[in-house]
Amino acid sequence: MSFVLHPRLAADTFLVGELTLCSVLLMNDSRYPWLILVPRQAGLRDFDDVPMGDKSAFHREIDYASAVLRSETQAFKTNVAALGNMVPQLHVHVIARFEGDAAWPGPVWGQGEAVPYESSAATQLITRLRRDFGMKG
Amino acid sequence: MSFVLHPRLAADTFLVGELTLCSVLLMNDSRYPWLILVPRQAGLRDFDDVPMGDKSAFHREIDYASAVLRSETQAFKTNVAALGNMVPQLHVHVIARFEGDAAWPGPVWGQGEAVPYESSAATQLITRLRRDFGMKG
Repeated sequence: MSFVLHPRLAADTFLVGELTLCSVLLMNDSRYPWLILVPRQAGLRDFDDVPMGDKSAFHREIDYASAVLRSETQAFKTNVAALGNMVPQLHVHVIARFEGDAAWPGPVWGQGEAVPYESSAATQLITRLRRDFGMKG
Repeated sequence: MSFVLHPRLAADTFLVGELTLCSVLLMNDSRYPWLILVPRQAGLRDFDDVPMGDKSAFHREIDYASAVLRSETQAFKTNVAALGNMVPQLHVHVIARFEGDAAWPGPVWGQGEAVPYESSAATQLITRLRRDFGMKG
């Protein structure tokens, strides 16, 4: 069974690029700078499902995404979460939070409707993020 | 500066016991089997704040808590999250979820009021969890 990104994740996000283990996605919700990491392995569901040999990369990429997002946004707080009740494919939310953002101090899920990025804003943010992650091209 | 458990966490939970890095707490909300891991180090706030030398223990203890909770509860899904918007001390939620539980399929935070355990139920669950974690005494 080969890895295919869950269609709901594909529909709700832009691809930023690829790290060694995970694809990095940008949630199409301009209310919050919001990355999603998805290990490119089929059949993973819970946070502890990542195989032993990939766990250190998994943790390292979560930390890396947190640092990149914090540096890019000057986030007040970073939320990290693997929930997956609706989308069963393992994915880790890394969200930059600010005092007074649309859901503050609550969690972001299920709060109002997503506000999609304007096309040029998404392109510019993805370009900056790719540079910050050190992704080529 | 020495580590002191945040008073809000102390008020909302029972102590299950101590792992090498983290204290394991049981959230006093009988609607969900819900553990909270708190690294016993002062000044940690975000998931990626754990010092390099403790990261592998941190990740391993999250995985261990997930496995123990799943085994104890036959959870359908495990939620893992470090949010900390309201309680700034780094703490990781590890929550057993079930189709049809009080917040399913949404996240548990901010959904209704906690339903405290009856005293004997909490004691029994903590005893079972301590046994599952291999904690002494």
